[in-house]
Amino acid sequence: MRQAGRSLPEYRRIRAQHDLFSICRQPELCAEVTLQPVERHGVDAAVIYSDIMVPALGMGVDVELVEGVGPVVAAPIASRRDVEALIVADPEETVAYALEAIRLVRRDLASEHAVVGFAGGPLTVAGYLIEGRPSRTFTRLKRLMYGSPAVWHLLMERLAEAFSRYVAGQVRAGADVIQLFDSWAGTLSVTDYEEFVASYSRQILDSVDAPTIHFATGCTHLLSSLARAGGDVIGVDWRLPIDEAWTVVGLDRAVQGNLDPAVLLAGWDRIEGEARRILALAGGRPGHIFNLGHGVLPETDPAVLTRLVELVGDASGRDAPAARAAFEHT
Amino acid sequence: MRQAGRSLPEYRRIRAQHDLFSICRQPELCAEVTLQPVERHGVDAAVIYSDIMVPALGMGVDVELVEGVGPVVAAPIASRRDVEALIVADPEETVAYALEAIRLVRRDLASEHAVVGFAGGPLTVAGYLIEGRPSRTFTRLKRLMYGSPAVWHLLMERLAEAFSRYVAGQVRAGADVIQLFDSWAGTLSVTDYEEFVASYSRQILDSVDAPTIHFATGCTHLLSSLARAGGDVIGVDWRLPIDEAWTVVGLDRAVQGNLDPAVLLAGWDRIEGEARRILALAGGRPGHIFNLGHGVLPETDPAVLTRLVELVGDASGRDAPAARAAFEHT
Repeated sequence: MRQAGRSLPEYRRIRAQHDLFSICRQPELCAEVTLQPVERHGVDAAVIYSDIMVPALGMGVDVELVEGVGPVVAAPIASRRDVEALIVADPEETVAYALEAIRLVRRDLASEHAVVGFAGGPLTVAGYLIEGRPSRTFTRLKRLMYGSPAVWHLLMERLAEAFSRYVAGQVRAGADVIQLFDSWAGTLSVTDYEEFVASYSRQILDSVDAPTIHFATGCTHLLSSLARAGGDVIGVDWRLPIDEAWTVVGLDRAVQGNLDPAVLLAGWDRIEGEARRILALAGGRPGHIFNLGHGVLPETDPAVLTRLVELVGDASGRDAPAARAAFEHT
Repeated sequence: MRQAGRSLPEYRRIRAQHDLFSICRQPELCAEVTLQPVERHGVDAAVIYSDIMVPALGMGVDVELVEGVGPVVAAPIASRRDVEALIVADPEETVAYALEAIRLVRRDLASEHAVVGFAGGPLTVAGYLIEGRPSRTFTRLKRLMYGSPAVWHLLMERLAEAFSRYVAGQVRAGADVIQLFDSWAGTLSVTDYEEFVASYSRQILDSVDAPTIHFATGCTHLLSSLARAGGDVIGVDWRLPIDEAWTVVGLDRAVQGNLDPAVLLAGWDRIEGEARRILALAGGRPGHIFNLGHGVLPETDPAVLTRLVELVGDASGRDAPAARAAFEHT
């Protein structure tokens, strides 16, 4: 996931000295970079600095984040034995540092700001575990899912159990909201998502004793299914206009999104026009959280983010619960 | 695009000696590999062996197909000057070999089989030209599109004009059908697709004096827009059930798809179940062309393809115009 922090010089200075997992393993440093976008842009929430593969580290997976590639898994999962080797344990034992960082952020952040914890969605994490690296086609994943459904379901059970414990641990540590990022779920058909994924996402979301956000990208066809699987808020990308997406999701849910992060690379007129269009389409309805449709691109000018937060704040009234800017820093 | 031929040993033997562009530049050889899947599987159509970057070669672009990566452009387009350097000429002068291959295929193929020519969609080809290589985020493309719309539209005009001439040339050479593959169009929102792409696709499709197929993948949100831009047949991937997709496209159009190519890596029971489900959902309605939702994956067992073609033929009646199997070999 791309991050608001990536575009900040104060983050890049730290990142030049430490890789991502090494920042995660140092709770003080992790809390510091988590707070940077809040301090810089005045957004309403701090999304904990982490990676969707952190709980996989806790499950004993040897994963490296390769610059310009993404997560690379040393021994991709290919068999029942590989799945059975995955450890499901108390996150306070396996990834205590990730929970400690949340405690520090919650301690240091003003109480009117939310701390957003998160986990990767089961399809997306399974994608990295099985493919071994980012994929466009998810061929190995689908081969295992279709060809060895029992192994697939065992993997999903392990991930759902481990992630349920992980997000519950995050809430106990102080997270006010949990986001489930199933970024690549859109690679599946509606029927396959329902058969192979939805119940595991539901299990994770149901285990959270706090409000939840459920997000995927490129998943216009899955919006109903995602909403049925759970989430008090459904995160929507930029593909559908937000009013249409909201209708599909159901007006009983909140939505967040849906500015294309790439729009922020354009001139201000285009950015302002798009932001105002989204605000108009959302119609000031309670339950709209203004956000990007995916993470901030690293090329983004931080000054543009600050200006956008101001615009959204001014347009919606600083005290209104709707239309708040909450950039992701995950 | 992945190809039916990729999974054939008789193709791999040829491909071991020649790269893709080199096969394209030898019309006899190109016709031979085009006909291989028809001979092997008994499908109803031969999709001409080519690549969406072939007309870009004719426009003077230095592009290489790198194994395991995809098209890599030596000097990605970044400015008005780069766009102005693109040549728009008669394809009989620039890529005569591609048209000659169509003549040979049409000559050698039984008349009841269709020859399918194609071009890449303007968004997808622009993606390769601007990004310089396959991209998941299309950041450079969007930066240019949003930030320098005049340059973007000039590029689209050039591509639309060159591709219109190219597909018209293919029809004159004997192509019975033209498919426009805008594989990555789904990266755009509905409004951006309408503003930046649709009219150029319409121009290309309108210039074809033969039936047309309009295809994109990951574009559930764009199905209506694609259909409005043109195409006698709309190609649909696997994301929506085919009956729902057909309703969105409009029942006045034909549709092709929508088996996930990855399903072919599963056991036969799953393959048969999925194929029969699609046939049942299409309901035997005229205007359903049974196909995969994207190209054949190279890992696919050719025997499975043959068996699938037989299944579809038996299920739908060999003489019925509906539900014919037309694997892509592009």
